[in-house]
Amino acid sequence: MAQYFDQLDKIAYEGADSSNPLAFKHYNASEKILGKTMAEHLRMAACYWHNFCWNGQDVFGQPTFNRPWLAGGDAMQQAKHKAGVAFEFFSKLTIPYYCFHDTDVAPEGSGIKDYINNFAAMVDVLEQKQAETGVKLLWGTANLFSNPRYAAGAASNPDPQVFSYGATQVFHAMNATKRLGGENYVLWGGREGYETLLNTDLRQERAQLGRFMQMVVEHKHKIGFKGSLLIEPKPQEPTKHQYDYDSATVYGFLKQYGLEKEFRVNIEANHATLAGHSFHHEIATAISLGIFGSIDANRGDAQNGWDTDQFPNNVEELSLVMYEILKSGGFSTGGFNFDTKLRRQSLDRYDLFHGHIGGMDHLAMALKRAAALIEKDFLSAAVAKRYAGWSDSLGKAIQSGEHTLQSLAELTVRDQLDPQPVSGRQELLENQLNMVLYR
Amino acid sequence: MAQYFDQLDKIAYEGADSSNPLAFKHYNASEKILGKTMAEHLRMAACYWHNFCWNGQDVFGQPTFNRPWLAGGDAMQQAKHKAGVAFEFFSKLTIPYYCFHDTDVAPEGSGIKDYINNFAAMVDVLEQKQAETGVKLLWGTANLFSNPRYAAGAASNPDPQVFSYGATQVFHAMNATKRLGGENYVLWGGREGYETLLNTDLRQERAQLGRFMQMVVEHKHKIGFKGSLLIEPKPQEPTKHQYDYDSATVYGFLKQYGLEKEFRVNIEANHATLAGHSFHHEIATAISLGIFGSIDANRGDAQNGWDTDQFPNNVEELSLVMYEILKSGGFSTGGFNFDTKLRRQSLDRYDLFHGHIGGMDHLAMALKRAAALIEKDFLSAAVAKRYAGWSDSLGKAIQSGEHTLQSLAELTVRDQLDPQPVSGRQELLENQLNMVLYR
Amino acid sequence: MAQYFDQLDKIAYEGADSSNPLAFKHYNASEKILGKTMAEHLRMAACYWHNFCWNGQDVFGQPTFNRPWLAGGDAMQQAKHKAGVAFEFFSKLTIPYYCFHDTDVAPEGSGIKDYINNFAAMVDVLEQKQAETGVKLLWGTANLFSNPRYAAGAASNPDPQVFSYGATQVFHAMNATKRLGGENYVLWGGREGYETLLNTDLRQERAQLGRFMQMVVEHKHKIGFKGSLLIEPKPQEPTKHQYDYDSATVYGFLKQYGLEKEFRVNIEANHATLAGHSFHHEIATAISLGIFGSIDANRGDAQNGWDTDQFPNNVEELSLVMYEILKSGGFSTGGFNFDTKLRRQSLDRYDLFHGHIGGMDHLAMALKRAAALIEKDFLSAAVAKRYAGWSDSLGKAIQSGEHTLQSLAELTVRDQLDPQPVSGRQELLENQLNMVLYR
Amino acid sequence: MAQYFDQLDKIAYEGADSSNPLAFKHYNASEKILGKTMAEHLRMAACYWHNFCWNGQDVFGQPTFNRPWLAGGDAMQQAKHKAGVAFEFFSKLTIPYYCFHDTDVAPEGSGIKDYINNFAAMVDVLEQKQAETGVKLLWGTANLFSNPRYAAGAASNPDPQVFSYGATQVFHAMNATKRLGGENYVLWGGREGYETLLNTDLRQERAQLGRFMQMVVEHKHKIGFKGSLLIEPKPQEPTKHQYDYDSATVYGFLKQYGLEKEFRVNIEANHATLAGHSFHHEIATAISLGIFGSIDANRGDAQNGWDTDQFPNNVEELSLVMYEILKSGGFSTGGFNFDTKLRRQSLDRYDLFHGHIGGMDHLAMALKRAAALIEKDFLSAAVAKRYAGWSDSLGKAIQSGEHTLQSLAELTVRDQLDPQPVSGRQELLENQLNMVLYR
Repeated sequence: MAQYFDQLDKIAYEGADSSNPLAFKHYNASEKILGKTMAEHLRMAACYWHNFCWNGQDVFGQPTFNRPWLAGGDAMQQAKHKAGVAFEFFSKLTIPYYCFHDTDVAPEGSGIKDYINNFAAMVDVLEQKQAETGVKLLWGTANLFSNPRYAAGAASNPDPQVFSYGATQVFHAMNATKRLGGENYVLWGGREGYETLLNTDLRQERAQLGRFMQMVVEHKHKIGFKGSLLIEPKPQEPTKHQYDYDSATVYGFLKQYGLEKEFRVNIEANHATLAGHSFHHEIATAISLGIFGSIDANRGDAQNGWDTDQFPNNVEELSLVMYEILKSGGFSTGGFNFDTKLRRQSLDRYDLFHGHIGGMDHLAMALKRAAALIEKDFLSAAVAKRYAGWSDSLGKAIQSGEHTLQSLAELTVRDQLDPQPVSGRQELLENQLNMVLYR
Repeated sequence: MAQYFDQLDKIAYEGADSSNPLAFKHYNASEKILGKTMAEHLRMAACYWHNFCWNGQDVFGQPTFNRPWLAGGDAMQQAKHKAGVAFEFFSKLTIPYYCFHDTDVAPEGSGIKDYINNFAAMVDVLEQKQAETGVKLLWGTANLFSNPRYAAGAASNPDPQVFSYGATQVFHAMNATKRLGGENYVLWGGREGYETLLNTDLRQERAQLGRFMQMVVEHKHKIGFKGSLLIEPKPQEPTKHQYDYDSATVYGFLKQYGLEKEFRVNIEANHATLAGHSFHHEIATAISLGIFGSIDANRGDAQNGWDTDQFPNNVEELSLVMYEILKSGGFSTGGFNFDTKLRRQSLDRYDLFHGHIGGMDHLAMALKRAAALIEKDFLSAAVAKRYAGWSDSLGKAIQSGEHTLQSLAELTVRDQLDPQPVSGRQELLENQLNMVLYR
Repeated sequence: MAQYFDQLDKIAYEGADSSNPLAFKHYNASEKILGKTMAEHLRMAACYWHNFCWNGQDVFGQPTFNRPWLAGGDAMQQAKHKAGVAFEFFSKLTIPYYCFHDTDVAPEGSGIKDYINNFAAMVDVLEQKQAETGVKLLWGTANLFSNPRYAAGAASNPDPQVFSYGATQVFHAMNATKRLGGENYVLWGGREGYETLLNTDLRQERAQLGRFMQMVVEHKHKIGFKGSLLIEPKPQEPTKHQYDYDSATVYGFLKQYGLEKEFRVNIEANHATLAGHSFHHEIATAISLGIFGSIDANRGDAQNGWDTDQFPNNVEELSLVMYEILKSGGFSTGGFNFDTKLRRQSLDRYDLFHGHIGGMDHLAMALKRAAALIEKDFLSAAVAKRYAGWSDSLGKAIQSGEHTLQSLAELTVRDQLDPQPVSGRQELLENQLNMVLYR
Repeated sequence: MAQYFDQLDKIAYEGADSSNPLAFKHYNASEKILGKTMAEHLRMAACYWHNFCWNGQDVFGQPTFNRPWLAGGDAMQQAKHKAGVAFEFFSKLTIPYYCFHDTDVAPEGSGIKDYINNFAAMVDVLEQKQAETGVKLLWGTANLFSNPRYAAGAASNPDPQVFSYGATQVFHAMNATKRLGGENYVLWGGREGYETLLNTDLRQERAQLGRFMQMVVEHKHKIGFKGSLLIEPKPQEPTKHQYDYDSATVYGFLKQYGLEKEFRVNIEANHATLAGHSFHHEIATAISLGIFGSIDANRGDAQNGWDTDQFPNNVEELSLVMYEILKSGGFSTGGFNFDTKLRRQSLDRYDLFHGHIGGMDHLAMALKRAAALIEKDFLSAAVAKRYAGWSDSLGKAIQSGEHTLQSLAELTVRDQLDPQPVSGRQELLENQLNMVLYR
């Protein structure tokens, strides 16, 4: 099959002085940082859906992209065409991983048997492509939100047959992920939420979701899948309200169903901001709760209230996120997946490369800065000093449960405690940070 | 002492045709609705702080209100003056309950001994005022956010001495609440959050908060306080991020520390909207999680990103909230506290009455509408019909744990499941609802 | 052709006690209010696009609606089928007006000649349908945002050929609107904005827009179109930033190009809220600037940052909007167009009726309440009293230009002016208002 | 008088490798960039109000800062103390300019005569301090929003006596600004807006504002003030809605009253984001409308809906802003005023230095990057190429008014125009930009 990106070969690292837009300026896969290569630290992935399944259509406009494999014709033939272009892209980009939904890679057909057969056939194709190119699977997932049957949710649907249909897709998608060596399995409940409380039974839907997630865990152990299970939070869109609102909300759900050791979160930057948080907040929160898993790397637009899924390029925030990850020991099975889409006007086929080269270079820039922060970790030092009292006798006694409200009330009076506020030194720390970020 | 509101006596119910602005048009305390009086259903309270401790100052402007008890002078004398006016107001308003912070009612003085002595003296005054007027205490709380010592939080402060000082206040405020017959004790962590992640240890602060809340529970049981413990969620303001973000977040926190049976939430309408939710959402969510406790009744401004604490007057939303509460069995120890403040321009002293009369009338209107919804409960009927499948064999089998992903995958294929979406009937339900709300 | 809505005939007014969901409870077309019929006051229209051109697809999901005329087949045949169903709907709904985009009613074909021919043929069809049914055209418009050629704008496109193509569509759409007796012509610049400032020349694009609008005015006068020209503001979506942000912004644009007498605004409720304003604000602002024209009646979701285009049902806000319109003399050529779309789950074909019946009934409820406010206009009385000073000597002297800063500085000292703030009486007015709205 | 900041002398430039937190790393006043010194380009100012009039109080908390001159005592004595500390700070910071409100520098006293006398006395003090230190006045302004008399606005107040009182303050503040060599005079209408539309006459208030601004222009010319008049937009806070919402809104207001040649805008970063725009957008818009004047340099918090007024440190956005300013020829009378306040926890007196050193260094970093963008202006080149068609015959003919809708409709058909969309190259431009910003 002819190449789609026939004007270029593999993207190479050319260094910061290169003016070649189709080269990496900062991402040098094999360069070692704090003892690991950039590739090992970042574990970057490109996604199947936005890159190869979207035609440039938006709510107010028709397709703008010329993607021959999305035109009519034999569906399985087109799926293979798509897979060919996708792996051509992954290879030329030299990105080590990819991610997919079941229905990205195979046509749904009409009915469950078609789905199973088509998907099985395409998993064979993917397996072969992976072998040919060395591209690996960061995670797989099942699309339980596009088909009209899922309009009112999948696991949380009022109709248990829809639950069953969704379970079937997840069964096959988990099995495929295991077979393809996927390192994680993701669940994004895009329609697990409500449009109006008037027709919704929140308690019932939550119980359904709880049972669904338990089944997923049981199946993981049954088939011996060694990867991580990940839930991806999002507050709304397409639904008015989505149950997996943010990391803290997911944590409460996991605790209720005893799943907090089995699931981690896949945090998307744009979902964090839609939820009213910074990306940094969501990462730090998930780490502090022990449920951090992986990242959908993108960005939103602070002035737009929907998921713009733009390529990440805020080096400041990415550096802080990378710093948190390095401090927590780095990714285990997770990585940075570019859940990103081109602007609708970016209709040149090589814009796909510009977007991803930028994303990869920006993460590399962030990694270098985060490493510099770790090497001379004035932030951790400032934090340690600020909380030093909790390592002293009073702090330890409180934390170990030796005190009650009454004993503290007595101690406060007895010792005439009169603690004085001290500067949080926020402006100073911000200055010191930026002296590293903007060298 | 001369009366402050000397132009009026008790506010009376005069019915919907009254044009007297200083009369109730809809709130008729003893009128029975669904077997209980309006007063018993609504359990309304006025607050001490906005009404009697605020002088009309805002971030950009000086005081506008003439409140003689806030002028200089002997602090305890002024505190008694304030209590006199407050109970004059509660009585004339005929509102059955009030709420307070420790430092609303008593001067802090300089140092912990002053605090304890002043507060004790003022609790005597409050006890006497309650006895004289029959006004009851819905809840008490301690202010752990205004004094500079709490600038970096109370329980989550980097300094354990501040934790201890805060524990001392809570010890005395809980004891006072019990003595005054308070039906709940509230904790609002106004500074339990962060200004910048750069100087913050999230895990440490959360552990501190967890221990603090456990102490509160232990103390409650030790002193035999029979009321409810309530946490009030808020997402931000004054902090950049507050840990008790919303009901779902609080639930996760309670689960982590084994406190979900001991605490409920006190939901404020304006805090709900600042968190990106509707007020209705927060109420329905808390009920579905089994942690609904009480309400701070007010409203925000959809165009302003801060806590405006206006008087509640959205009958539509209040009716839905009241409907959820009635469906769940009504308040137990909770009620509607008006955590409301006048607009800065509302500097006529009788504006305090206009605000509260409006709030009470709007809740009464909502109660009547909610009762109408309950009496002919087409919403519950629609919900029951929508989820009917979960009472059939497949639904029951899934819920009872009989199925696995694999068994459902087999069933789906075997039975050739092809569930079809059905209309959610949102527009119809909205129409039917409004035909009740706007009779 | 067989009827699409074959289960019902014309929707009738049955009064507030009717439980028939397919009847009006409040909208009684011929009922007189303040001397005019409800139909004359409200001048309601249904739209072609959301109702007959949308298939239930959203950004995350496939079509959910069964609309046979959107399936493949002969494009002109399907356009006629669509027109048949549309007019069947308008007639049965008994709505007096409709609105359309050129490309809603006729297939674009391939190239400008197809466009012209197809559109001309379909205008003949519409003319005939109007004659048969008595349904009238509130306004026409041209779609200059869906086709990929408009991805970077129409009038503001960097390519003047796109400007020319857009001018061609507007030429034909204005001519068609005139021929069909349309009472207004609307311009919504859905792509007249930017995605990134990095590639945008704001001054150039504004000048292009200015010239385009001048051409529209010139053409209006040339062809003797007697209707109003309307610009519809929107702040963003699909673009990151849209130039016609809100009414105040449009006013500045009109002033710059000398067009403020030639254009008015078509205000959409959901666009108002996306711009950070209340719907009421946008209406009151446009009236105060003398540029109020017409309304796209719908509502957004306060928790969602995109255009949800739901059916209007907030009686409170609609009553205030209607009150402003009545005070300003009522609509001239404008009216209430339902720029509304069903929820994606509302896939029952009769949901189209539920949505519109609700919209019409809610506007009727609002009209009755607004009339009550006008009849006993305590709001105007309060405003008149509040500004009374501007009718006294000092106020008049200032307004008539008799004073300078210096003369006022002298007067202030001479007369020892010391003006005292008075209560704005906001809570009281809100109470009095709601006693009318919730009778 | 003893020095307040007695631990340090003048802040010096020590270069990027310095680890001295109390030194500049990037701001080197005399370093030349594109032919002008950094000081000449940036024209930075510190403000009087946040730095010397604020005590750390917020809506939920008491003062945290120790500012002796804000304690009680003789008001004029304290005002002189304050001025001493302020100029000590400006000098040691080596910032060339400062800005003030009348009531920042002088006590209001009781009544207009006190105001005039106190202000006059303090202007003498300021004049002397300026002479002693060489610090210059970037702009002066009058505070028409803090005193209760302005609760309902100043120029837009329902009471014309309040208008007169405000005019008196502006008269004296303009005269003082002229005398002190101020380079601009600013008007921020903090209360020129509304709390509720229910009691507001928008048309009347706008006319009052229009007349007020005309008086300001007349007075400027009368006294021969050579500086610029600036209006500072803000969308809300403290009011629900402020009339000077954003630059585009102010432009419309200026056009209505024929003032667009007399006023420019003073754009504040945090006000831009509260208005739903990016800071970059507001700058680019004002420049494109010919009304750009000066900048209040700060930043907001994307997750908080109020004015946080933090120190600016987003080098990316500041670089783009600086690039726009350089492209437009640089500041004329304007500059960067730090309208910034410390976090409430930043209670160490030297935190004032940390904040401002950071602000000045970040602007210097931005200036260097903007100069690099100008020197190799690939952005302008990309824009020029994108709009090239408007320099060709069709584009010129349209712009010069040679075409009508009809002539374009004919041309489009005749030439079979079929313009094709081209890539906007957004991702590529973003990458190229960041390769400069993050060297």
